[in-house]
Amino acid sequence: MNSKRYSEFLTTDNAVLTMIDHQTGLMVALGDEHPTVLKNNILGLVNTAKAINLPTVVTASLPEGPNGPVMPEIVDILQTEVIEREGQINAWDSEAYRNAIKATGRKKIIMAGIVTDVCLLFPALSAIEEGYNVYAVIDASGTWNKTVQEVTIQRLTQAGVKVTTWASVLAEIMNDWRSEHGEALGNVLASHTTKYGYVMNSYFAKS
Amino acid sequence: MNSKRYSEFLTTDNAVLTMIDHQTGLMVALGDEHPTVLKNNILGLVNTAKAINLPTVVTASLPEGPNGPVMPEIVDILQTEVIEREGQINAWDSEAYRNAIKATGRKKIIMAGIVTDVCLLFPALSAIEEGYNVYAVIDASGTWNKTVQEVTIQRLTQAGVKVTTWASVLAEIMNDWRSEHGEALGNVLASHTTKYGYVMNSYFAKS
Amino acid sequence: MNSKRYSEFLTTDNAVLTMIDHQTGLMVALGDEHPTVLKNNILGLVNTAKAINLPTVVTASLPEGPNGPVMPEIVDILQTEVIEREGQINAWDSEAYRNAIKATGRKKIIMAGIVTDVCLLFPALSAIEEGYNVYAVIDASGTWNKTVQEVTIQRLTQAGVKVTTWASVLAEIMNDWRSEHGEALGNVLASHTTKYGYVMNSYFAKS
Amino acid sequence: MNSKRYSEFLTTDNAVLTMIDHQTGLMVALGDEHPTVLKNNILGLVNTAKAINLPTVVTASLPEGPNGPVMPEIVDILQTEVIEREGQINAWDSEAYRNAIKATGRKKIIMAGIVTDVCLLFPALSAIEEGYNVYAVIDASGTWNKTVQEVTIQRLTQAGVKVTTWASVLAEIMNDWRSEHGEALGNVLASHTTKYGYVMNSYFAKS
Amino acid sequence: MNSKRYSEFLTTDNAVLTMIDHQTGLMVALGDEHPTVLKNNILGLVNTAKAINLPTVVTASLPEGPNGPVMPEIVDILQTEVIEREGQINAWDSEAYRNAIKATGRKKIIMAGIVTDVCLLFPALSAIEEGYNVYAVIDASGTWNKTVQEVTIQRLTQAGVKVTTWASVLAEIMNDWRSEHGEALGNVLASHTTKYGYVMNSYFAKS
Amino acid sequence: MNSKRYSEFLTTDNAVLTMIDHQTGLMVALGDEHPTVLKNNILGLVNTAKAINLPTVVTASLPEGPNGPVMPEIVDILQTEVIEREGQINAWDSEAYRNAIKATGRKKIIMAGIVTDVCLLFPALSAIEEGYNVYAVIDASGTWNKTVQEVTIQRLTQAGVKVTTWASVLAEIMNDWRSEHGEALGNVLASHTTKYGYVMNSYFAKS
Amino acid sequence: MNSKRYSEFLTTDNAVLTMIDHQTGLMVALGDEHPTVLKNNILGLVNTAKAINLPTVVTASLPEGPNGPVMPEIVDILQTEVIEREGQINAWDSEAYRNAIKATGRKKIIMAGIVTDVCLLFPALSAIEEGYNVYAVIDASGTWNKTVQEVTIQRLTQAGVKVTTWASVLAEIMNDWRSEHGEALGNVLASHTTKYGYVMNSYFAKS
Amino acid sequence: MNSKRYSEFLTTDNAVLTMIDHQTGLMVALGDEHPTVLKNNILGLVNTAKAINLPTVVTASLPEGPNGPVMPEIVDILQTEVIEREGQINAWDSEAYRNAIKATGRKKIIMAGIVTDVCLLFPALSAIEEGYNVYAVIDASGTWNKTVQEVTIQRLTQAGVKVTTWASVLAEIMNDWRSEHGEALGNVLASHTTKYGYVMNSYFAKS
Repeated sequence: MNSKRYSEFLTTDNAVLTMIDHQTGLMVALGDEHPTVLKNNILGLVNTAKAINLPTVVTASLPEGPNGPVMPEIVDILQTEVIEREGQINAWDSEAYRNAIKATGRKKIIMAGIVTDVCLLFPALSAIEEGYNVYAVIDASGTWNKTVQEVTIQRLTQAGVKVTTWASVLAEIMNDWRSEHGEALGNVLASHTTKYGYVMNSYFAKS
Repeated sequence: MNSKRYSEFLTTDNAVLTMIDHQTGLMVALGDEHPTVLKNNILGLVNTAKAINLPTVVTASLPEGPNGPVMPEIVDILQTEVIEREGQINAWDSEAYRNAIKATGRKKIIMAGIVTDVCLLFPALSAIEEGYNVYAVIDASGTWNKTVQEVTIQRLTQAGVKVTTWASVLAEIMNDWRSEHGEALGNVLASHTTKYGYVMNSYFAKS
Repeated sequence: MNSKRYSEFLTTDNAVLTMIDHQTGLMVALGDEHPTVLKNNILGLVNTAKAINLPTVVTASLPEGPNGPVMPEIVDILQTEVIEREGQINAWDSEAYRNAIKATGRKKIIMAGIVTDVCLLFPALSAIEEGYNVYAVIDASGTWNKTVQEVTIQRLTQAGVKVTTWASVLAEIMNDWRSEHGEALGNVLASHTTKYGYVMNSYFAKS
Repeated sequence: MNSKRYSEFLTTDNAVLTMIDHQTGLMVALGDEHPTVLKNNILGLVNTAKAINLPTVVTASLPEGPNGPVMPEIVDILQTEVIEREGQINAWDSEAYRNAIKATGRKKIIMAGIVTDVCLLFPALSAIEEGYNVYAVIDASGTWNKTVQEVTIQRLTQAGVKVTTWASVLAEIMNDWRSEHGEALGNVLASHTTKYGYVMNSYFAKS
Repeated sequence: MNSKRYSEFLTTDNAVLTMIDHQTGLMVALGDEHPTVLKNNILGLVNTAKAINLPTVVTASLPEGPNGPVMPEIVDILQTEVIEREGQINAWDSEAYRNAIKATGRKKIIMAGIVTDVCLLFPALSAIEEGYNVYAVIDASGTWNKTVQEVTIQRLTQAGVKVTTWASVLAEIMNDWRSEHGEALGNVLASHTTKYGYVMNSYFAKS
Repeated sequence: MNSKRYSEFLTTDNAVLTMIDHQTGLMVALGDEHPTVLKNNILGLVNTAKAINLPTVVTASLPEGPNGPVMPEIVDILQTEVIEREGQINAWDSEAYRNAIKATGRKKIIMAGIVTDVCLLFPALSAIEEGYNVYAVIDASGTWNKTVQEVTIQRLTQAGVKVTTWASVLAEIMNDWRSEHGEALGNVLASHTTKYGYVMNSYFAKS
Repeated sequence: MNSKRYSEFLTTDNAVLTMIDHQTGLMVALGDEHPTVLKNNILGLVNTAKAINLPTVVTASLPEGPNGPVMPEIVDILQTEVIEREGQINAWDSEAYRNAIKATGRKKIIMAGIVTDVCLLFPALSAIEEGYNVYAVIDASGTWNKTVQEVTIQRLTQAGVKVTTWASVLAEIMNDWRSEHGEALGNVLASHTTKYGYVMNSYFAKS
Repeated sequence: MNSKRYSEFLTTDNAVLTMIDHQTGLMVALGDEHPTVLKNNILGLVNTAKAINLPTVVTASLPEGPNGPVMPEIVDILQTEVIEREGQINAWDSEAYRNAIKATGRKKIIMAGIVTDVCLLFPALSAIEEGYNVYAVIDASGTWNKTVQEVTIQRLTQAGVKVTTWASVLAEIMNDWRSEHGEALGNVLASHTTKYGYVMNSYFAKS
């Protein structure tokens, strides 16, 4: 790997977003972040994709069982089908899932998963091995507790995955406030970074 | 004060909600809770009042200046006018404000304010002195940091104010899931206690 | 209230334990303590009651719905029926529940509830008003986050409730290691205070 | 004590500020707050007094020894002499100190001290006994660690002292933004509540 | 209780120190403070008593069993016998212990115990009932976790116990740096408040 | 090392579990995680191995002395002999231990140890040097405090060890819910991830 | 990269400081550090540059809009023009900015930005790619919360950026207390590391 | 660097300990660890060296000035001279210091310094460049706050330094409890890992 690997940026044309197992039966079990903050981060990431019509792949593990359905908000926003896996823990082991990623023709994968140490970690490792450039969105993923998050960040980084956060992804793709999607992405940013939204409220109230 | 003072409950008929100075220029300055969590708590409290048509009094301090406007979401939900104060820090010093409270004819005041150590504390103390029963909603108020919150809780309690939280207020008023407002309040609760909302999602997905 | 009110102790003959709404659909929503620690505390409290055959009253709110069943471990250990409430949030509003407490003839109530700010707080306030001496077991109860716990502790204390913890309750009742229940309670203590259990392991391995 | 005791407010005419033992040799030993935050709080409180020409009494314990001099900033701002105590730990035991307080003719004492559990606690208790109304400014005081702060807050409150914070004192005295000292106090507030200062920067940059 | 109850101070003549169950088998089980910090606090309190020849009563619960011996450092410093209890959990239930306290003829009891929610709480409540003035030294006591400490502080305060800390006790007794015990107590303070000791090191290195 | 090194997965056929020095005399000394949480993690890891009949190697350092016996639960579950070391701190220095690992013929070692910075770190480094692929299970290991854990994670990662957690190991081996061990491992997961267990309780209560 | 890359030091001759987007509308939105601490760190870094006349490049993103002006203190201290960007998020995409850096002829860039995960991360990655040696000053940058800071530190380090802090930068450049800038930098250090400043106060008071 | 670099161990024959700038005027300014815990760690490390007669090099920066003398305990224990530097911040820039290290003929340097981000970081980087194998003892070093510690750990690791802790160093050198220094090092370990010392107390009390 050359250093350039770490300095190439996401664009609207080179990336795909995948949301793995954000299911309500799993999300109640998380403990590394306040649930309201995590939900807000997830919606920030999903709305980013929607604002720029980024290709997205959503998958779920046994949604008929205790894991429950994908968060309804994700499905509502992305208006995409959910690839239901019958048992594979690593989404990359699902041919339907892998094909959906490959069909986008993109080599940079923005990936979030519940739980971080399983549903994000394993497909991230598999995708790296196949030459993808993986952005693991830590704050739109979640796991049992903070220590598990910290440990998983180390293992992801060690394998060459880039760890990132939802607002960083948004800004990396936006690139310029004057770009085609600048206004739409600015709205997403204001809506989901609570205090920055208040700044907007104050500013435009005064205008 | 007899012990009964502390064991009487809120009802739809005996209480008024007042939201004091939840202005966007002040809310960016807070530091005792994650801003996204606080915003969610505030909306939970306001939606509780709306669901049961509780009388509400909203006030702001110099909203044309740096303090900025009341959070637009509060005004949208409650559809009420904001009593703009020209300079009084303690809202109770505003005749218009005091009259608005008195006009409701209710003796239990559910009170939240930004910042906790000023805009909640001072009117709470004034209202107690005039014989009101004050419920200070700590988690729908906010202040500079956690220590200020802790100190203010002690001073409120010492003066006979009841400290409480938004979800406790909702449940105290709801009283019974079979009551007139049971379903509406249940929806508010699910919407704003994130994980309890996921439990609902899982449950009804299965039904 | 005289100061004696706060210095009388629990005994096997003067107390009743009540577990309010420890239901699996509610317990996933808690956030003021690590879930594994809370579960261990709850089982410590319940096993304390079992070891001394303390009267117990267990109740649940709408267990057929999203709130789910009472934790199976509680029912298994206490081998008692669950008083299912049809809608009353404050368990004290349920005649069946109140009668069950009264039927024990005891005036000291050891009370735990999920969530602390609702299912523990309201019946504690109601019981105090009727002259009971209430021990609110904070660490065998649980709620949304630490701030809500802190606020509720203030409101309970203000109303004359004694706040306590499960291991303190055990020791208060045990009174003397040589008492009839000394060995049984010692075993409960060792089993649920993890490191004290290790001390026992080391000690008896050496013996 | 009637409830009014807790609802009377500070004014420019009824209060005196006393700063006890804010000496540089003691301040390095503190651990309950970030030192930079504490210093900022202390300067906020002192500048509040200066802005309204509040009477002030500053004292130090053995400043020639390891305790060191009073923070130079305090002396610079208040331009007052320091009452040096030769050995009394409780400042109230110093006749010179007590007389300085009494000479102001004011019955409300705004008190801060290093360390909280000694230099603030003891004179607060002594002043309460002599009928003063004491405001203990917790966040302009400091001590060894957070637990000591928490414990001292309980002991102060139990004895009838009001615990408070520097910004709450400022607002309580200001009373109205249109008052004589409104602008001066507003500037102090903006200077020492960092983010509120940024709000001002943004606002006036736009004007 | 009049307010004076809370403003009377400890002296070398009116107080007794009691250390309850600081046994090595119990101390490994604690979790509300770093063990090294707690040990240092305990030794600070014990050395305070030694420096002024304060009467002391040390007791242990079943030291032949898993609870283990009293910390050897306590026995070494105080050179006192340990009252071994055969089974009573509340030390006040031991006639030998009660008599030892009463034999001192002092009405102010400085009390520390392991664990806070049992071995400190119960004798504190019993002593209050018998008219003693109890100082519960929270930071020289220890318990399972921080929440248990917080809850116990509330229950102690509610019953009229004064909660305090070891360095506050030292300073309350010292009263004046020029007193008979000023130098000895100053040395204890420097030795056990680590950073204040460094200040002394720097100061005297320069002299 | 190629990137594949970090993306190969554990299977039931390529891994061995080793538990190093989980002795009760050591476990009381830990401070980087709540003891009840750590115990639960350890049992989760051990039960994972049992559910799939993974080869296991358990060792202890001087169990007759203060270190005490291996946690009885580990021995009960694994039904394996403990390799007692006479003095070697690094288990890898014990020929009996090394041979036991080698005899399994497996090159991936799932390793946990008490304390993390000694009993896990040193054999992990030795095994890496001999070409093993080491998975250091951080949350089933424990040490003096959080900083020591953080530092050790860096040193392990730097040397090429993969840091991981018990639930991640379970999922990595399970691979597919439909696999031979899917149900057994699912039960282990539910039993030791407390809230996920509640989800199961709610789900099957409704079925 | 050879190991020397990580052991070369900053000097007054080889480095340039760049401050990116420290704008008051952004700074209110931060949450990974106390705002007063962050402000103090930023001023410490800027005063370091001023004390040694280090070349500096300051830039802002759309300062006429909600982001607001650069902190006035930065402009006052550095007396430099602000390069206003019209929309580029990554400052490196601005030709004016890139040219300003290049014009200094220096290859070591001391870089701070608001927010860390965007305005610091992206130009740091771009500069590394062009062969610069980048020092990312984490504690003079700020972002939404601590997790985002932690994640960004990993991504910066992975790409070969050196993460550092303002006081470390000062000391690295100062090199020797006897150097030309020793006294000036010593004053900056004392002014912004609060307790070290108190040490100075005590020391010189005694002299 | 081959992987062996990270798996070679410290021995009594291949290592030298250096303590850099543990001066009382600096130690009061630290904030990343409780001062009592840090002091105990430092003494644990120093006593380790003494127990095995490890060569040691102690240095101080301008000890006549505000930085003050080296902690007297270090000098007392090691009975070594302090190399006083006249101004060099990086100890490696001092010829006397470098020569003292080189004179030991050892290539593994166990290094601790105050502050971590300066007095430990810079000589660690310099020593790595000259081919030494550096062990940076993080918990016997100290700095302004936790974030600075975290950042410095990353920079040290990035440059190939091994980060470690004092008890890990002790165990790495001890190697075997039956070794020549086993008993002496065991005593150091028990004395400075507080709870492990209690385990010893309990064990030998029973013997």
